[in-house]
Amino acid sequence: MTDAGPDLPGQGAQETLAEPLRTRWSPSVFDDSHVLDRDQVVRLLTAARWAPSCGNAQPAHLVVAERGSPSHEVLVRHLSRGNARWVPRASLVLVVGAQHAPDERGEGGYKPRYADYDTGQAAAHVTLQARAMGLEAHQFAGFDQEAVAAELGVPAYVRLLAGIAVGVRGDPADVPDRDAERDERVRRRVPLSARAHGDRWGTPWQGLEP
Amino acid sequence: MTDAGPDLPGQGAQETLAEPLRTRWSPSVFDDSHVLDRDQVVRLLTAARWAPSCGNAQPAHLVVAERGSPSHEVLVRHLSRGNARWVPRASLVLVVGAQHAPDERGEGGYKPRYADYDTGQAAAHVTLQARAMGLEAHQFAGFDQEAVAAELGVPAYVRLLAGIAVGVRGDPADVPDRDAERDERVRRRVPLSARAHGDRWGTPWQGLEP
Repeated sequence: MTDAGPDLPGQGAQETLAEPLRTRWSPSVFDDSHVLDRDQVVRLLTAARWAPSCGNAQPAHLVVAERGSPSHEVLVRHLSRGNARWVPRASLVLVVGAQHAPDERGEGGYKPRYADYDTGQAAAHVTLQARAMGLEAHQFAGFDQEAVAAELGVPAYVRLLAGIAVGVRGDPADVPDRDAERDERVRRRVPLSARAHGDRWGTPWQGLEP
Repeated sequence: MTDAGPDLPGQGAQETLAEPLRTRWSPSVFDDSHVLDRDQVVRLLTAARWAPSCGNAQPAHLVVAERGSPSHEVLVRHLSRGNARWVPRASLVLVVGAQHAPDERGEGGYKPRYADYDTGQAAAHVTLQARAMGLEAHQFAGFDQEAVAAELGVPAYVRLLAGIAVGVRGDPADVPDRDAERDERVRRRVPLSARAHGDRWGTPWQGLEP
């Protein structure tokens, strides 16, 4: 799927969105001296809490891994090589898990088909709330999820999926060039016509016609 | 899991969030005379387009089913009994599918583990963009997904998951009492301490201690 070239107004440009969606992106250069206060973390967790879910099953769990905390230390040891360079600089990582079966007391996990979907919604709410608070958030999947789950004691009814690194932008001069260059990449999306269907699948929605 | 009772500031109240997260909810009474214009629909699709995804795989597909259109007619025939009362009144339904395998040209679908998670993120972005535009959005899963997929020609590499009903709030007096009463229900969430873990799984994050 090739990119459609420059994004024009009316053809899917991010600039046409409302905040905080308009300026959301996933930077890789964080300020490793920045610390979130308790109220900020509570608001990020609250954003996940009020995300919608199928049958209100609320499958999303978050492990709060503040830089320097025991859970952060576990995560950092199991990051992929690429993520090990930038993730540890973020103020906080929220490790995201989806509950796909009931817990020991028979609670939760009763909409397994929607566990990942709704956990993704909760992660998106956290990410957008962060942006609205003047923070940046960058989700990543590259870590040894089985090892982190085992060390943190995550039960079998929860599947770890991602981490959300949260913080403020750092100075690119403070990180190796190849990491600073990540943030200079052109951001690409497939054209709307490849994802938005109309009267039938594969028939682009008529509103997209030029 | 029982509700913690009234939500107090600092304990996960939705009122502490930024817009559009603060006022997002899922109403069931839509104005069945309201129509979205083309630009509004494009902006909803654009919100999905710029959602983040693992490896930029962009798994979320949307079928634009405007009230009265052929794809809307297909969807409406396959709604669950409960959803058949309120969904058809919405201005638009975006039928959401997750691509979990490559298409006929070998494109897309290359992060199947994250297909549902990232499709949920795209749906959340649509829902929040709608709220920011003064619209309401209510996601639902209750429809015969296999039948709708077959009638719309959805390929096997895409799994239909949900619908997003979008529109403006209608007059509760225009719908049967039991439907109007849906929107009066107290909205409940489990306490933050049941979803936010700290140094280990099951140890609530210390910032939640009273």
